[in-house]
Amino acid sequence: MSMKYAVLGLLIERRGYGYDLANRLQERLGPGFRAAFGAVYVSLDQLAKEQLVAESRRVQVGRQVKVYYEATEAGVQRFGRWMRESVGREPVRGELYLKLAVARDEDLGTLRDELQRLEHETLAELERCGRALGAEEEGEELRWEDAARWLADVAVVERLQADLRWLRIALRALEWAASTGAVPRAELRRSGLLSPA
Amino acid sequence: MSMKYAVLGLLIERRGYGYDLANRLQERLGPGFRAAFGAVYVSLDQLAKEQLVAESRRVQVGRQVKVYYEATEAGVQRFGRWMRESVGREPVRGELYLKLAVARDEDLGTLRDELQRLEHETLAELERCGRALGAEEEGEELRWEDAARWLADVAVVERLQADLRWLRIALRALEWAASTGAVPRAELRRSGLLSPA
Repeated sequence: MSMKYAVLGLLIERRGYGYDLANRLQERLGPGFRAAFGAVYVSLDQLAKEQLVAESRRVQVGRQVKVYYEATEAGVQRFGRWMRESVGREPVRGELYLKLAVARDEDLGTLRDELQRLEHETLAELERCGRALGAEEEGEELRWEDAARWLADVAVVERLQADLRWLRIALRALEWAASTGAVPRAELRRSGLLSPA
Repeated sequence: MSMKYAVLGLLIERRGYGYDLANRLQERLGPGFRAAFGAVYVSLDQLAKEQLVAESRRVQVGRQVKVYYEATEAGVQRFGRWMRESVGREPVRGELYLKLAVARDEDLGTLRDELQRLEHETLAELERCGRALGAEEEGEELRWEDAARWLADVAVVERLQADLRWLRIALRALEWAASTGAVPRAELRRSGLLSPA
């Protein structure tokens, strides 16, 4: 799992403990990503088992013990290998497309409600992530670390905009199907809702 | 897993056997989706175990036996429930963003090569799926089944275009980082590579 190597990368930058690493990852990736805090602890366990990280010290804070980890030499090697491995493009296989593909006439109303809900959700998400993107000052020269965060925001916003365009065209198609029993594709294509080819 | 209920939906339309169902699903979803043939057989097993489908007959073809399945009444009920369940938006959590977020200076060249590879791959995929989308005749009134297939193509193309826009801006950012050590965000935003806000 790739989260593991991202955690390793953070530890190569500087040592850290579980909660701190989860926060650093979340900060690095921005609001469009959900860094699963639990997954960070699982990653640390796996990394320690594979001796890619090692405990560097324990600090008692009240009743809690913070366990700090640091990357080992083997960890640095493995991280470099991970960086050089090819990334597969994520295949599109949303459950929603499956539902549309096998919907019966009586399911179209349900799907329209669902698409409307997703449209609202996507708009809200777009506003949330777009705010992060818009909060920048012009003319800034970014260090790579901040540039990567900005790129993550851009990726999320581009994705959300694509999803929104699609949701709106799908809603229009569902409305046609529900009212006339057929979908006039050419008309949808001329609607201006889609990206220019 | 959602593939299971998509297979169930196909069986509600009419009975079928494994290979036939995999083909029908692939045809319904178009070239942007990869219907995993193995997953269809796993789905059939699970559906049969849950008595949502039942064997309707066996046909001997040469040495092979085709097992036809049909949906049970319980299957039709369960399918309706699946349709009414909410779909979660897929969170963006690509491995690539993780790599960018934790890259060291010496990793930037590797990532640039990887992004270039992905740009070519995405362009090729866009051509492949765009062809399916462009092969239509104007003025057609689509039945829902064909409209759903068209919507799946549109979803894939919108996604690919968003990915391509992002890849190009990320490549530009990497080039800046490699040559000057900093990324001029405002300049990238003015480049016209991104979606209009």
